[in-house]
Amino acid sequence: MAPKYAPSLRSRLAPFLLFLQIGFVVVYYFYIEIESNVNGIKFSNFYPVFQDLNVVVFLGFGFLSTFLVRYGFSGSGFNLLIAVIGTQWALLLNGFESWYYRGKIRIDLNSLVVAEMCTASVLISIGAVQGKTNPVHLILMALLEVFGFVLNEWLLQTLLPVRQLNFIMVLHIFGAFFGLVLTWILCRTESFQGFEKEKLDRKTGLFSMLGTVFLWMFWPSFNSILMEERRLSAVCSTYLALAVCAVASVALSVLSSPKGKVNPAHFQSCILAGGVAVGVSMPAIRYPWEAMTTGLAAAAVSTVGFQYLKNHMLFAFECHDTCSVLSTHGLPGLLGWLIQLVLQIQQCDDHTMAIRFAVFHIDALLITLATSLTMGFLTGVLLKWDIWRPPQDKKCFDDQAFWKFEHLAVRK
Amino acid sequence: MAPKYAPSLRSRLAPFLLFLQIGFVVVYYFYIEIESNVNGIKFSNFYPVFQDLNVVVFLGFGFLSTFLVRYGFSGSGFNLLIAVIGTQWALLLNGFESWYYRGKIRIDLNSLVVAEMCTASVLISIGAVQGKTNPVHLILMALLEVFGFVLNEWLLQTLLPVRQLNFIMVLHIFGAFFGLVLTWILCRTESFQGFEKEKLDRKTGLFSMLGTVFLWMFWPSFNSILMEERRLSAVCSTYLALAVCAVASVALSVLSSPKGKVNPAHFQSCILAGGVAVGVSMPAIRYPWEAMTTGLAAAAVSTVGFQYLKNHMLFAFECHDTCSVLSTHGLPGLLGWLIQLVLQIQQCDDHTMAIRFAVFHIDALLITLATSLTMGFLTGVLLKWDIWRPPQDKKCFDDQAFWKFEHLAVRK
Amino acid sequence: MAPKYAPSLRSRLAPFLLFLQIGFVVVYYFYIEIESNVNGIKFSNFYPVFQDLNVVVFLGFGFLSTFLVRYGFSGSGFNLLIAVIGTQWALLLNGFESWYYRGKIRIDLNSLVVAEMCTASVLISIGAVQGKTNPVHLILMALLEVFGFVLNEWLLQTLLPVRQLNFIMVLHIFGAFFGLVLTWILCRTESFQGFEKEKLDRKTGLFSMLGTVFLWMFWPSFNSILMEERRLSAVCSTYLALAVCAVASVALSVLSSPKGKVNPAHFQSCILAGGVAVGVSMPAIRYPWEAMTTGLAAAAVSTVGFQYLKNHMLFAFECHDTCSVLSTHGLPGLLGWLIQLVLQIQQCDDHTMAIRFAVFHIDALLITLATSLTMGFLTGVLLKWDIWRPPQDKKCFDDQAFWKFEHLAVRK
Repeated sequence: MAPKYAPSLRSRLAPFLLFLQIGFVVVYYFYIEIESNVNGIKFSNFYPVFQDLNVVVFLGFGFLSTFLVRYGFSGSGFNLLIAVIGTQWALLLNGFESWYYRGKIRIDLNSLVVAEMCTASVLISIGAVQGKTNPVHLILMALLEVFGFVLNEWLLQTLLPVRQLNFIMVLHIFGAFFGLVLTWILCRTESFQGFEKEKLDRKTGLFSMLGTVFLWMFWPSFNSILMEERRLSAVCSTYLALAVCAVASVALSVLSSPKGKVNPAHFQSCILAGGVAVGVSMPAIRYPWEAMTTGLAAAAVSTVGFQYLKNHMLFAFECHDTCSVLSTHGLPGLLGWLIQLVLQIQQCDDHTMAIRFAVFHIDALLITLATSLTMGFLTGVLLKWDIWRPPQDKKCFDDQAFWKFEHLAVRK
Repeated sequence: MAPKYAPSLRSRLAPFLLFLQIGFVVVYYFYIEIESNVNGIKFSNFYPVFQDLNVVVFLGFGFLSTFLVRYGFSGSGFNLLIAVIGTQWALLLNGFESWYYRGKIRIDLNSLVVAEMCTASVLISIGAVQGKTNPVHLILMALLEVFGFVLNEWLLQTLLPVRQLNFIMVLHIFGAFFGLVLTWILCRTESFQGFEKEKLDRKTGLFSMLGTVFLWMFWPSFNSILMEERRLSAVCSTYLALAVCAVASVALSVLSSPKGKVNPAHFQSCILAGGVAVGVSMPAIRYPWEAMTTGLAAAAVSTVGFQYLKNHMLFAFECHDTCSVLSTHGLPGLLGWLIQLVLQIQQCDDHTMAIRFAVFHIDALLITLATSLTMGFLTGVLLKWDIWRPPQDKKCFDDQAFWKFEHLAVRK
Repeated sequence: MAPKYAPSLRSRLAPFLLFLQIGFVVVYYFYIEIESNVNGIKFSNFYPVFQDLNVVVFLGFGFLSTFLVRYGFSGSGFNLLIAVIGTQWALLLNGFESWYYRGKIRIDLNSLVVAEMCTASVLISIGAVQGKTNPVHLILMALLEVFGFVLNEWLLQTLLPVRQLNFIMVLHIFGAFFGLVLTWILCRTESFQGFEKEKLDRKTGLFSMLGTVFLWMFWPSFNSILMEERRLSAVCSTYLALAVCAVASVALSVLSSPKGKVNPAHFQSCILAGGVAVGVSMPAIRYPWEAMTTGLAAAAVSTVGFQYLKNHMLFAFECHDTCSVLSTHGLPGLLGWLIQLVLQIQQCDDHTMAIRFAVFHIDALLITLATSLTMGFLTGVLLKWDIWRPPQDKKCFDDQAFWKFEHLAVRK
């Protein structure tokens, strides 16, 4: 018989968090300073987009995962916790080169943005293991995944003559496959019975709707924030792709339901797939119809993936993907990669260039996938260890395991 | 006896959405391109206000209508769906002239803003028929209303030498009266019994409060976004009008209740009336006190209209107005129109100018009302057709008719 | 036996609100005009930060206090009401000098920002008396507290040669201690039994989480909005302090719970303490590690204060502090003041300067505390009067006392 209470994390979580945080403060003391030579106008122009990104990262990803009826506090609260740990860690890792040559790391809004982007890949991966992990798992995962992400970035820039990294591509694909391997390793059970408390509710579903709408609205900022040029084009393309994707997702969700109803879970994840796909293929998108077709294809891939692949993944591969990151980020990411490949080859003038680009593009994907799967595997093996006190199956998907609620009786 | 389930929309909604969306992609393929000659600084300055508008349109209007206890998903989800269809359609219709002369339509942030403004009038109209329609109705309505709105714009600019259209005025008045005629035609029943599920709830009421607060906060952006000059004046005036309107609405709501309580429905719609009225009369507002008096008058008109007119409309005219668009947008819009008339005449130096302005101003209102009522009537006649499978009265105001919820039992 | 219903506020609240609002309109008619000489670029750059502040003031503070299970409408609704009354009043009081010398008060975005900052101190104080007061109390409190705040500002600028006021410092410390004295006077009961309806709920707790996340995300805007220079530094420092504070609060909350769980109340208030402390000490913060250490110390002070001090305050001093403003704003504010003192003295080159600064800094705190406590005491004595019809203990913390809800039965 399982114990009545979830295992206490007091002796694990608190010292680990304090050690980590004090460690960060000490390292920052020696190596980090704030950029003092600031262009006021550039700052003012960039700051609102930076805040949009914060809304995406802290609010959007957090509230997107409040759809589980008893997991809203963990979904939104731990998302914030992991995001701030990941960002502090990414600031350090991204500044490694600067530290190596100059001994100091200077941070500005741009460094914060890049660090949050690295962290976003962690937040995507968390979607796959949501509800089946404890905060200690999540923190370890954040540290390892951000490390893997930065390693992958360095590999890409070293092995391939990539001038500027397609961050958006890397983060969706890297994040999704990292999460999938991780959940595959963590949750392999002989006979899968399902989790008792993994269910949706109308009321908390509206919180999730709120997160979705925020992500959807600010996705154009997310896709355009790191671009120096063609920002209008990126914004319009993302906007149109998201619009088309929303319409097509609803249509396909209705089609796939015998009673002709919309599945809220489709609505809350598939309408975002257009933004993912168009973000990944952004460098090649020139015309609105290309963005719109990308959105249409992303909706198809995502809805079909959600409807048919999710259960197959579970029963065939014993891979339980809570927030369907495969169909929300993984498949649309790969689709975007493919669309970029096709479009770029078409836009090339001569064959040599086209082949050269194709080789680079395929290599970039393979390197990213390899790093992602390897790091995910290693992280999974580490997290499988019982020392981290994983929640029992009966306590999964329950805020009660980690949050202290007063009884709703009269307080005296 | 009514059938047990709401009619399935599978054979209507899905093909219609796909046909419409693929149609849009095809048309966009031939005619739409993204503006490439962009002023970076202008873009950066405009982008945050554009995002504020998105928050108003996608989040504000959507969550404002989550106050119905079982209609939150439809309220917020279909709002997003209609908004993106309407915006794509409006982009095409607004570009008609450009297409006619140059064969291509170039879009930028400004086109998106104007298109969303056209769509906002649809979102206002939806408030009147909320809960009593299915998504197919809403889409047809969006297509026809945006067409009517653009037609009205063209009529105003052709018949009257209006230099710049007072968009804000047109959208509130056009939207409100279109919706009223529509609901009047759709919901004429011999003996009105009320809808079983049209009720409020405290918990979902807080979502609606959230939508209200977002609309309220970003209304200054909404009112000033299309202004080239005097933006500070527009922002301050809207801010003050909204502030005064909030205070006065609470006071009047308390006065009109025998037990001296605030009606949450008043709070959630009437505090916005000041923004509507001041937006419509904006071109004539010069001083803070004018904006504040407008806000005060709008609160009075709106609260009184909500409290006493809503039931009269229902019983005398058989016109069931779910979100009270008459008292939130219609009456404050007319009030704003009147205030603009009075102020502009006062500001004119000579009589000829004053009379000329008055004639134009009255004509503009009459044309707008005529187009709005005619288009609303035609739309109503079309939607009355049984082929669109309207929900039965018992299934009105229920998400269950359109959204698939898992049973809250243990999932196995 | 207590009466069955809460006392009706119809004869108090409505006339008071109308009188006040019409009074404001009349005064604004004579004395207020909108700045016409506007720098367009400066306006565009400032506007997004102004909107961030609105989100903090109207949404963040409002939804932060929706954690009480039956007090969500009052928490968010009255917050908006008080904020707009306070802002209109503060605009007048802040313009007193301009009125004295020029006969007119010119307002622009900057005046609105300063006025909202003054009001923010009221919103902080409300946290202490939340649920135990009626709207009439809150309005009187807003009028008196804004007056006290502006008086304190004038005292500081007159008595000390302070060049620029450290607004952030004053508003947190002033607001917190004003609220504490007020709640101490209002709620002194011989034998404190606790309030029947003062309890949390998971569902409404998520609304509060939403408010927290918004406050947390836009705190950098709040702390940097009034700075002319070094805005990047202010933004980065606040961001890092908040990040560290979030991590440390979770760790300390887990440590302080026997079962190793996170207290949602800690999460929702203590993660903001870092922003308070770093805001107060901002003028002296030069390096990221200083901001991070401030965040760490603030988390410690705030979590320990919340966990151990709140009940002591209640039983030892009979001071019932609903939203723990002491540990969220008061103690972190004092901590920030101390950190600023230490850092500034270290940065001074010679002793004379250091002593001079220390004297000024200590004087500023003492004056602020004295004004705050005195005004809070006077306000408390005034509000204690039965003429304002305070809610009975049984009706405290209940929306039902002030908001009219339909019965959830079938509407006919």
